[in-house]
Amino acid sequence: MTSGKIIIVGLGPGPDRWLTPEASHALEEATDIIGYIPYVERLPDRQGQVKHATDNRVEIDRARHALDLAQQGHVVAIVSGGDPGVFAMAAAVFEAIDTGTDADRATKVQVLPGISAMQAAAARLGAPLGHDFCAISLSDNLKPWDVIIRRLTAAAEGDFVIALYNPASKTRPQPIHDAFALLRSLKSPATPVAFARAVGRPDERIVLTTLGEADPSTADMSTLVIIGSSETRFIEREGQEPWLYTPRHYGLKR
Amino acid sequence: MTSGKIIIVGLGPGPDRWLTPEASHALEEATDIIGYIPYVERLPDRQGQVKHATDNRVEIDRARHALDLAQQGHVVAIVSGGDPGVFAMAAAVFEAIDTGTDADRATKVQVLPGISAMQAAAARLGAPLGHDFCAISLSDNLKPWDVIIRRLTAAAEGDFVIALYNPASKTRPQPIHDAFALLRSLKSPATPVAFARAVGRPDERIVLTTLGEADPSTADMSTLVIIGSSETRFIEREGQEPWLYTPRHYGLKR
Repeated sequence: MTSGKIIIVGLGPGPDRWLTPEASHALEEATDIIGYIPYVERLPDRQGQVKHATDNRVEIDRARHALDLAQQGHVVAIVSGGDPGVFAMAAAVFEAIDTGTDADRATKVQVLPGISAMQAAAARLGAPLGHDFCAISLSDNLKPWDVIIRRLTAAAEGDFVIALYNPASKTRPQPIHDAFALLRSLKSPATPVAFARAVGRPDERIVLTTLGEADPSTADMSTLVIIGSSETRFIEREGQEPWLYTPRHYGLKR
Repeated sequence: MTSGKIIIVGLGPGPDRWLTPEASHALEEATDIIGYIPYVERLPDRQGQVKHATDNRVEIDRARHALDLAQQGHVVAIVSGGDPGVFAMAAAVFEAIDTGTDADRATKVQVLPGISAMQAAAARLGAPLGHDFCAISLSDNLKPWDVIIRRLTAAAEGDFVIALYNPASKTRPQPIHDAFALLRSLKSPATPVAFARAVGRPDERIVLTTLGEADPSTADMSTLVIIGSSETRFIEREGQEPWLYTPRHYGLKR
């Protein structure tokens, strides 16, 4: 055992106003910062701290690198956008440990939660996640598409609010179209839908629509898509964007 | 229109290390703080700021009070534990607006996200929410129990990781027993289960078990219960509590 450790740090959706004090402190304390290029570049250069920026989709290599450095005594911060525990780096690190050595299982690891994209989106829109909801990644890089179909179907049958992560990318434009086609066969066309892109960042873009009228190609890799339950509703406002929320009451009378 | 507004502030699960800079700033800026007694009492007294602490289960009265004060020009912070958008005050405020007046719909409202209990619990345990998951409140104060049954069943059919909020209270001890009985009929007894009580606070208590062996009465109103998917697993460690995580890969070979 050395004094080394891995701290998996959630940076939140971007702006510093959402970075927790715990995460800030860890970023100062680390001897090494490891992460996907845009997250690492966002952080200031600090004397005595080494930044290791890597490309996307090499999460396991990144986790392995962090384990090696920690076992040499480094204090390694692995940075992740949003919450590292939600479709992000924490699971990759534990996969590396689970398939690794006794030394890996003995390595000290801390996970620091962060504000996830669905929370920033929900806060920006009103309170669409105000009642039972589920979060589904539409990426089929690591799971078969039939698992995604099964989960979307169950989410509709359970009348959950649905938050879709990784709805589309340049190399993977089709999943969001297939997901909408399926959900349209299972849910009312009047169901509220929000495309919340890059919430809190300069390139933020919000599109509010319905399941029947939505254009799925509105979603890109920076977009969080929220699809309502049967209870989710808009509150129309004079001269302003409507609020979107899901009541705590099931069957609320207006 | 006045300069008044409502800011719905997520305090996170308790410790200041999880309070975002945005939330800290809002708590300083507010003329009035409204919330459930323990959340309001946790905050320091500030000159020129009025604290209105109310009992639990009066969320709509609290929202109405905040709307009235904001319409008189006050800057009102409604404080909520965790994330106000997740089973908390934000939906109550929008319910009050939705059933309210034109003045209510014109009132300026901001929602500030916070770290939710399931995120703090997940970070403490490893990465159990590392893949598709759902969040279900077991409180049947505001929704019929058959909706809860429907959602638990769908969550099992979709093989989601399940985070249960409000699993039990002194007046409502039965739901968690009924939920476990149902899930035991639908999922493997080997499914990992975590009871994560008051994570990050002095009275934190963690119980790691399986669906087959769990004692549902372990849960109280401060407990977040996590029930794994078919992929969720423990990583055993020598002399330490095992990690709990859900791989990003479906069907990960170890």
